[in-house]
Amino acid sequence: MADDRLLRQIAFLIEADKLKNIIRRTSLVDSSRQENSAEHSWHLALAVLLLAEHVPFEFDLLRALEMLTVHDLVEIDAGDTFAYDAAGHVTKAERERVAAERIFGLLPADQASRLHELWEEFEVQQTPTARVANAVDRLQPLLQNAYSDGGSWRSHHVTRFQVLHRMAPIESTLPDVWPMVLEIIDSFCASGLIHENG
Amino acid sequence: MADDRLLRQIAFLIEADKLKNIIRRTSLVDSSRQENSAEHSWHLALAVLLLAEHVPFEFDLLRALEMLTVHDLVEIDAGDTFAYDAAGHVTKAERERVAAERIFGLLPADQASRLHELWEEFEVQQTPTARVANAVDRLQPLLQNAYSDGGSWRSHHVTRFQVLHRMAPIESTLPDVWPMVLEIIDSFCASGLIHENG
Repeated sequence: MADDRLLRQIAFLIEADKLKNIIRRTSLVDSSRQENSAEHSWHLALAVLLLAEHVPFEFDLLRALEMLTVHDLVEIDAGDTFAYDAAGHVTKAERERVAAERIFGLLPADQASRLHELWEEFEVQQTPTARVANAVDRLQPLLQNAYSDGGSWRSHHVTRFQVLHRMAPIESTLPDVWPMVLEIIDSFCASGLIHENG
Repeated sequence: MADDRLLRQIAFLIEADKLKNIIRRTSLVDSSRQENSAEHSWHLALAVLLLAEHVPFEFDLLRALEMLTVHDLVEIDAGDTFAYDAAGHVTKAERERVAAERIFGLLPADQASRLHELWEEFEVQQTPTARVANAVDRLQPLLQNAYSDGGSWRSHHVTRFQVLHRMAPIESTLPDVWPMVLEIIDSFCASGLIHENG
């Protein structure tokens, strides 16, 4: 018989499967459907591997990969909160806190604490590693919108100010990428997909 | 203007989005649909983080996460080859070799080489790290089948011998998990979803 520790780890891995059904606002590049939070998390891991060389400060790549792998798991209970949904963000922290207790609590206590810490570090954004993880989490949806048809901006009234505010963490974390971010925002303003004013 | 290096990295990240449309035979645990190779790759990263403590030899966790993140990218061109598709496996190596050249070749040369090496290391299975990555790649679909309705075994004639052969790498890499693997196989044989003989 497997011991309780292993059974908890397996139960958690089975529960985690539900992240594949959490649907985000961002569409795939081919616009065929909206992406889910599991495949999104994978894409961020790939992005940090490839863009790490552009980060102008020291950070922990292994910890960034761990953080990106677990950072959205709370959405299994709390759902994905759209970046530009102000009302949703009022309740997001409490919904996600309760979700973290339940979901990470499926694991053995030491691993529950470890994943909880990784998730909190990501949310609080006070460490270099969390800043890098956050920057790719901001960048990737912008790229997918830019290379498809405007995706999540098309169907919602989003302003230049909102997008600039959302993307701001990229400027100091991936400074080489920042001019491209501004170009993308400018082009979407020019085409009317991002609104110049609220 | 972004330099050529960054443009290649971004082009690669956009191309990688296609992995979200590569459909595997394994279903989600809730049987609502088949999973794709991007979300599958994410699930394996989570699995190696949680099960690493059960590996009875030294391996490189960062490299395992990198390997699992990139190991299925060749499927963008080569498609997913079902584990129990003997005919597909005859041509798999050549299809994937050509795919690796094109897909990794989108990157700057040094990163193309690095990802190519990670992928080859995974395929060749000669290092401890590749063995761990491979073991979770074998285990996760078995767990999803076990906790759903038999998924990819249900719709294909799969024998006990085939499944045992497929799962064999788990025995030495995750020995604590092996008795559970055997229990799952036994229970699926008992219910007739896995056939005792060919």
